[in-house]
Amino acid sequence: MTVVLAVDAMGGDNAPFIVIEGVRLILEKDLDVRFMLFGDQAVLEKGLIDFKERCTFIHSDEVVTNTTSAKDALRTLKQSSMKLALEAVKEGKADGCVSAGNTGAYMALSKILLKTLPGIDRPAITASLPSAKGATVMLDLGANTQISPLNLAQFAIMGQAFARTVLKIEHPSVGLLNIGSEDLKGNAIVKEAHDLLRQHQCIPHYHGFVEGDDIFLGTTDVVVTDGFSGNIALKTAEGTVKFFAAELKTAFEKSLLTKLVYLLVRPLFQGFKKRLDPRLHNGAPFLGLRGIAVKSHGGTDAIGFASALQVAINMVRNRINELISEELIKIQALEDIPLCEETFLTQQNRDVS
Amino acid sequence: MTVVLAVDAMGGDNAPFIVIEGVRLILEKDLDVRFMLFGDQAVLEKGLIDFKERCTFIHSDEVVTNTTSAKDALRTLKQSSMKLALEAVKEGKADGCVSAGNTGAYMALSKILLKTLPGIDRPAITASLPSAKGATVMLDLGANTQISPLNLAQFAIMGQAFARTVLKIEHPSVGLLNIGSEDLKGNAIVKEAHDLLRQHQCIPHYHGFVEGDDIFLGTTDVVVTDGFSGNIALKTAEGTVKFFAAELKTAFEKSLLTKLVYLLVRPLFQGFKKRLDPRLHNGAPFLGLRGIAVKSHGGTDAIGFASALQVAINMVRNRINELISEELIKIQALEDIPLCEETFLTQQNRDVS
Repeated sequence: MTVVLAVDAMGGDNAPFIVIEGVRLILEKDLDVRFMLFGDQAVLEKGLIDFKERCTFIHSDEVVTNTTSAKDALRTLKQSSMKLALEAVKEGKADGCVSAGNTGAYMALSKILLKTLPGIDRPAITASLPSAKGATVMLDLGANTQISPLNLAQFAIMGQAFARTVLKIEHPSVGLLNIGSEDLKGNAIVKEAHDLLRQHQCIPHYHGFVEGDDIFLGTTDVVVTDGFSGNIALKTAEGTVKFFAAELKTAFEKSLLTKLVYLLVRPLFQGFKKRLDPRLHNGAPFLGLRGIAVKSHGGTDAIGFASALQVAINMVRNRINELISEELIKIQALEDIPLCEETFLTQQNRDVS
Repeated sequence: MTVVLAVDAMGGDNAPFIVIEGVRLILEKDLDVRFMLFGDQAVLEKGLIDFKERCTFIHSDEVVTNTTSAKDALRTLKQSSMKLALEAVKEGKADGCVSAGNTGAYMALSKILLKTLPGIDRPAITASLPSAKGATVMLDLGANTQISPLNLAQFAIMGQAFARTVLKIEHPSVGLLNIGSEDLKGNAIVKEAHDLLRQHQCIPHYHGFVEGDDIFLGTTDVVVTDGFSGNIALKTAEGTVKFFAAELKTAFEKSLLTKLVYLLVRPLFQGFKKRLDPRLHNGAPFLGLRGIAVKSHGGTDAIGFASALQVAINMVRNRINELISEELIKIQALEDIPLCEETFLTQQNRDVS
């Protein structure tokens, strides 16, 4: 099956050049992918001239920048490259969309254009991070800075479905990120979400609270949190790895002996670096939408952008969204947890009356 | 000057044994320190029999555990080792207090017994973390899970004072932790705190928003955040370092050659490990109190507990609290920022009328 991806070629710090190079990396290795590229047509066409039979170029003058508000992206910029790319998915012309642009605007546009899955009120940025036990699915990584306990419960259900379908973990365990593992720790929102998840059957392997160090220890297969804490945790981990690597480099540069030793262990380090290379973990889907939208890091390079494209391709080929939908329908059939805000409020009223 | 420390000998996962051993480590190397130890008198006396002339043992049967609520710690447990230790500071019998016990209870008791400094509404857990540029002062690391913009502004002032007095940085730069550096990013609380800090003169080197990776990059000398995000960032960094170290170890164990190489570079790694050893960074003061209270990690060992004792000793000897107080008075004299909630509200009313 040929996958068609819509790409916002103008989003991110180094657009459209890293986008062109990232697209090229995929085109070279995968013959079953076609691209619709939205942005500066002349530059894009010139950059991908040797692949023009597998690319469609759609011109757009309007760019959503990092300082564009979500409101402006929705209302003022009617023909932005980001919006046009998402519309291609909405209209069925493309199987998924990738952008390295402004997260808030991209999320707002995705939600309006693609709509959320039944039972999901808010999509969440989701990633699979390396851990001592293999991988940890973490969400939300920055889409929702203010959330309700119910949103967290929905993220848990989506994360569980993602772990089952993408990581092929049959019985994924789910943890709720907090500042301690005891029940009395944390703020009102995580405590209420904890109660919700404990009371209902939708997460059979709900572990309870986990802490920041559990993400990389792999204590649970899925870690659920709000977008503010999630983004801070992710970026802190990235910063820590960079710091650690720089310290190590300094240590190896101390003397001639250590420099020689470094030559001996270089291949080992390269494998190690690759495992932790944020570029190779780039590409976070907005989970919970009725279409595929993948967010690339804004500051990534061509290799990183190609990783994000690959995430979208894998999601299409493995029917991830359909599988998650099926999981959600199954859980809804249980009528166990009131999944969306509307039914939750109805049930609360029923409980009271 | 002899420093007298009050120690809650029953707090933490491995109390009182690591407390006894940690106290012993300090007693052995520093002749000018005396201890008041609160807890199981018989065990403590036996454990420190050879130092009994420099230790006072005060018996307490009541222990604040990790599941004790702050309310119970305040009202029900009248004679807990934690409470008695803080009372010794309040009554001037000790110069500072150290506990590895329940953070929430310790913070609540400290605030009630020692009171906050003028102009400070809430104390914050503060630590100096290693960074690419030396050290980053970070607060709050877990005391306040729900805060106001004004609390964040106060944390900024305290962090600035801590960087000046403890790290001897003449003009410390201060950043506010957020999920992006643009003004439109983040939740309502950080946005309002950002406006407060920009408008007022109390933080001359206010940098603006910083992200998770800036903590270890050392982008600013001080990073200010709420206790929920701060704790998650700190624990995530700890987990990342552990993960990184374990991966590295696995890599070195791959073959005979790499094992031999490891022997060559072992001293280098030991220096490196020491720099990042969380035990040696253990001991976080509750900044903003009228007395010294230092929190040790609950799961630390004797070396880690000794580090926390050392933090308290250094704070006493360097008159850190007095210096921070003086800074706060200077800033208040500027009448620039309405420092405490009361004056803030008064000024807001004035602004409106």
